[in-house]
Amino acid sequence: MSEIPHVVVSRLPIYLRALENIAAEGLTCISSQELSERLGISAAQIRKDLSMFGEYGKQGRGYPVAALTEALRRHLHVDRMWDVVLVGVGDLGHALARYKGFPDHGFRIAMAFDKDPEKIGTRVGEIEVEDVRYMARRVQENGILVGMIATPANAAQEAANTLVFAGVRALLNYAPIHLTVPDDVRVEYLDPVIPLQRMTYYL
Amino acid sequence: MSEIPHVVVSRLPIYLRALENIAAEGLTCISSQELSERLGISAAQIRKDLSMFGEYGKQGRGYPVAALTEALRRHLHVDRMWDVVLVGVGDLGHALARYKGFPDHGFRIAMAFDKDPEKIGTRVGEIEVEDVRYMARRVQENGILVGMIATPANAAQEAANTLVFAGVRALLNYAPIHLTVPDDVRVEYLDPVIPLQRMTYYL
Repeated sequence: MSEIPHVVVSRLPIYLRALENIAAEGLTCISSQELSERLGISAAQIRKDLSMFGEYGKQGRGYPVAALTEALRRHLHVDRMWDVVLVGVGDLGHALARYKGFPDHGFRIAMAFDKDPEKIGTRVGEIEVEDVRYMARRVQENGILVGMIATPANAAQEAANTLVFAGVRALLNYAPIHLTVPDDVRVEYLDPVIPLQRMTYYL
Repeated sequence: MSEIPHVVVSRLPIYLRALENIAAEGLTCISSQELSERLGISAAQIRKDLSMFGEYGKQGRGYPVAALTEALRRHLHVDRMWDVVLVGVGDLGHALARYKGFPDHGFRIAMAFDKDPEKIGTRVGEIEVEDVRYMARRVQENGILVGMIATPANAAQEAANTLVFAGVRALLNYAPIHLTVPDDVRVEYLDPVIPLQRMTYYL
């Protein structure tokens, strides 16, 4: 399974999200055609992508929602809970720390760090904001592999360096800069400007 | 130019962002090889994508940063300022309303709406939070085409319906649900779970 192309991997969480919504609607089976209409991905592409996960989707029966959901969770490694370290507890950091969508999807904000003395020691969501000076040690001690950067742009690369040094291998970056990291570290960007500009092209 | 494939369009904002950073570093020329190293996109792909924008990137000279930046801005239609309507002024909405990255990249949060009486009338960033009941009229009157949804999941579809009815044609959705919109409306999703799950596959 490790040879799934990255472009397919990048669609798997989208399929998983759709299947979870479909299950919440009470449906137990879904056709590739119906998935296609919900997602705007062609039914042929969906069938090809999902064929990598075994013999789901028998002709005329549709996909069994529960079994396919479980297979996707397993392959995406979100059939477990990942502890996440959050850096930067401004408005955005607060929103992330309190975001209800994480626990059901495999993630838990386990620690939050800031450099502002007025924030250190305050509570956000379920946790207490800690001093960023102790971040490397705390992350390392707890074996945390996933980080979220919600600092201002000028602090993001330093935060990334510290997290990578401490063992983090997956970074979700909200700061509007490109991060330089070693080859074995993955970075995903959540800069609102990029998707906005993808749409204005068509306006 | 309207026949640029969507997959290429989706990379243009990433090139633009990189060029802006490069200009900020004081460089006036950049090779496809250097861009490739910064972005993790192959130099051949970059040359192919950027060849659609005319005769930039002469052999051995590299791309002229300022001219290519201007061309990308023009093609992405961000050589102007887009007014944006924001729905939902919780922690995330606050972060968006105060986000410093918009004005320099073609966007301005012009209005913000919420249904919470305690929020209506308060100031966030440069603007005053308005009652969501008046959103359709206000958006229509001002001809706003771009919206951001930062409501809870259960309010997002209704917000989208109202915005589309009022003329919005590009939606950036932060709520963790799939939105159903007409074919002539574009939606981009900024759900942190999706990129996190894209990375855990590799952990």
